Amino acid sequence: MTKMFGYKINHRDGKARSGIVSTARGEIRTPAFMPVGTAATVKAMMPESVAATGADILLGNTYHLMLRPGADRMERLGGLHKFMNWSGPILTDSGGFQVMSLAGLRKLTEEGVKFKSHIDGSEHFLSPETSIEIQRQLGSDIVMCFDECPALPADEKRVSDSMQMSMRWAARSKQAFGNRPKHALFGIQQGGVTKHLREESAKALRDIDFDGYAIGGLAVGEGQVAMFDVLDYAPGQLPDDKPRYLMGVGKPDDIVGAVQRGVDMFDCVLPSRSGRNGQALTRMGAINIKNARHRDDPRPLDPECACPACSNYSRAYLHHVFKANEIISSMLMTWHNLHYYQELMAGLRGAIDVGKLDDFVADFHAKRADGDLEPI
Amino acid sequence: MTKMFGYKINHRDGKARSGIVSTARGEIRTPAFMPVGTAATVKAMMPESVAATGADILLGNTYHLMLRPGADRMERLGGLHKFMNWSGPILTDSGGFQVMSLAGLRKLTEEGVKFKSHIDGSEHFLSPETSIEIQRQLGSDIVMCFDECPALPADEKRVSDSMQMSMRWAARSKQAFGNRPKHALFGIQQGGVTKHLREESAKALRDIDFDGYAIGGLAVGEGQVAMFDVLDYAPGQLPDDKPRYLMGVGKPDDIVGAVQRGVDMFDCVLPSRSGRNGQALTRMGAINIKNARHRDDPRPLDPECACPACSNYSRAYLHHVFKANEIISSMLMTWHNLHYYQELMAGLRGAIDVGKLDDFVADFHAKRADGDLEPI
Repeated sequence: MTKMFGYKINHRDGKARSGIVSTARGEIRTPAFMPVGTAATVKAMMPESVAATGADILLGNTYHLMLRPGADRMERLGGLHKFMNWSGPILTDSGGFQVMSLAGLRKLTEEGVKFKSHIDGSEHFLSPETSIEIQRQLGSDIVMCFDECPALPADEKRVSDSMQMSMRWAARSKQAFGNRPKHALFGIQQGGVTKHLREESAKALRDIDFDGYAIGGLAVGEGQVAMFDVLDYAPGQLPDDKPRYLMGVGKPDDIVGAVQRGVDMFDCVLPSRSGRNGQALTRMGAINIKNARHRDDPRPLDPECACPACSNYSRAYLHHVFKANEIISSMLMTWHNLHYYQELMAGLRGAIDVGKLDDFVADFHAKRADGDLEPI
Repeated sequence: MTKMFGYKINHRDGKARSGIVSTARGEIRTPAFMPVGTAATVKAMMPESVAATGADILLGNTYHLMLRPGADRMERLGGLHKFMNWSGPILTDSGGFQVMSLAGLRKLTEEGVKFKSHIDGSEHFLSPETSIEIQRQLGSDIVMCFDECPALPADEKRVSDSMQMSMRWAARSKQAFGNRPKHALFGIQQGGVTKHLREESAKALRDIDFDGYAIGGLAVGEGQVAMFDVLDYAPGQLPDDKPRYLMGVGKPDDIVGAVQRGVDMFDCVLPSRSGRNGQALTRMGAINIKNARHRDDPRPLDPECACPACSNYSRAYLHHVFKANEIISSMLMTWHNLHYYQELMAGLRGAIDVGKLDDFVADFHAKRADGDLEPI
C-alpha cells in the first residue's frame, strides 16, 4: 500500500512556503493553524463550527485522553474522530510535554516517565512505545514522537543530554510506529536555543526519516526574540520537502514571524483560552470585554470580521454575557478568536501564493500599531 | 393602525386547540413551548440553534434584565431582540414572580414592590407602571401584567387578598400599556386552587379585556394532581378566542395534560437547566448522563431523535464531556432537551390537527412506561 500522506509545496516566498499536506482523512492547507481539542472537544465549540472557521485539522492531547476517557475505551468506541464527531485529520501530541509539566508527580528514566494522574492520582507510565500505541488507539492521523525538553533557560549540558535522550526516543518511536500507510509520524527537533545542538538533533531525525518534522522546545520561556533567533536557522536544518510544525505557538505575531522563517504548521490554546477569559484577539489588537467601557458600545468586536460574534452581536452584548457568566460568552468569544486565527492563516497563504508576504506582514504590523487596542 | 396581534384556532380536539398566534414579529404555532432566555440568552445555545429546534418565541425575564444590563441601556442599544440576535417574538414576564421569591429582600405595598438586587444589593421598585415601562424598553412583543401570588398551600383569605390586588394591578397594567398596536398585553388569572376565586379573577380580567390570558399561581408547590384539578376548569373561565398561557410549566406530562385541558402556551427552565445538570429528557424517560453506566455506551441518547447530540454523539461521549466539565456538555444536552420539547409540541399540534390527541397521549404515556429509564 502506498503512503497516503504527503506534502506538496505550491508556492514559495522567501523562506515561506504554502502548500497542501495530504492525509487519508483530507487535505491540510499550509501554513495551517490547528485548534486544540484537549479532552475530545475544542472547548465551547461544536466541531462543525470549528470547521466553519476554516480549520482543516485539530490537535488532541494524548495525556488528557489516556487518563479520561482512556485509550482502551476510546479504541473500543471507534477512535477519537468518531467519538468527538470530527471527520478531518487529527494530530496528537505524545503526552511527553504535559507529563514533564507535572513537577513532583513524575519520575523520568531512559525507559520513559512514571507519573500520577492529576485527576485521581492513579499511576501511569509513558514511553516511546506506550505513547505511540495510545496514539494508534486514538486513531491519530499524525502521530508525534515521544520526547522531553527542559524549560528555558537551562544549561547546555542539560539541554544536550535531554535532546540526545529524545533522539534515542525518536528512534524507538519510529520502531514502535512500524509501517502504517494511512498514518504519519513526525519527529521533534530539540536542542534549546543552541544552534549546534539543533543541528545535531536535526541530523539524528533526518537519519531516522520521518513524514514530517516538528520544532520542539520553544515557547517555553525564552521569549520571542530568542525564539526567532532559533527559527532563523532551525527550519533550514530540517528537510525542505516535508512539513515543519512549530509546537505550541503562538500569538499572531509569533505565527507570522515563524511563517516568514519557513514553518508550515502551528497549534496553540491561546485563541480558545483567551476567548473563555473574555479576551478577543483582533487584527487591531486585543479587546478585554470585561472592561466596563464596553457596556454601552454598540459596535462589534471587529467590523470587518465575518464571524457570528462580529456579525450579530455588539461589544455591549459580549460584555453583558461575560459579566453574567453566560456560556454563550465562551461560545462567541472562542468562535471569534478561532475565526481570526484562521483568517490570518488564509491571509498568509494567499500572500505567499502571490509572492506578497512582505507586504502582508507590513500591513499586519501597521494595523496593530494603528488602533487604540491593547497589544496581544 | 389595526392590531398586529391575533389568535386563530385551526383545529379542536376535546378541550385542546391548535392554532396560530400572529405577532408583528412572526407567527407562533400553538400549543407552543417558549424556551427561557433569562439574561438575554437561552443558556448554552446560539439563538439560531434554538430556532432550529422549532421554537417560534422566547421568554425573557424582566427582573434579570432590568438589573443587568438594565432597561435604559437595553433601550439605548435597540432593544432585547437586536441585543440577543433573536428576530422572532419575545414574551417577557413582569418581574413580579421573581421579585416575590426574594424573601427578606422585598417590601410589598398596594403601590408595588421595593426590593434589593441579588447582584449588588442596590434598591429597585417594581409596580404595574414601572414593569410595563421596562417591558416596553426591552421591546417585548407579549407583555405580561404585573401581579403577585402566594406559594401554595396558603389560606383562602391570603389567596383572595393577593388575587384581588393582582386584579387591581391588572387594571393599572392595562392603563399603563395604553394603545400599542404592534404589541400584546396578557392578563394573569390568580386564585390558587380555589374555583370561585379563579372565576372571580377571570371575570375581572375579562372585564378589563386583554390580548391573551395567562393562568398564574400554579406550579408553585401544589403538585400535578391539584394543578390538573384547577386546569379542569380554569381555561374554560377564560375567553375561548384568546391564547391561554400556563406560566412556568413544566415537565412533559404536565404540558401534555394541560394541552388536553385547553392550554396553548408554556414556558419552563426545566429542559435547559436539566441539560446543564446532565439530565437528558427523552420520550422514554430521563437519562442521568453522569452515571458511570454510560461511559462505554456507544448508543445515542435516543436513536429516534434527530438533534445534533443524538445524531452525532454517543452516551459515552456525553458522559465523558460532562465528567470533564466541558462546555459542549451543556451545549449538546440543552440542545437535545429543547429539541425534545419542541418535538413534543409538534406532536401535540399534529395530533390535535387530525383529531387524534387521545391516541397521541396514550402513546406518550406508554413509551415512558416501556423503557428502563428514570421517570421525568
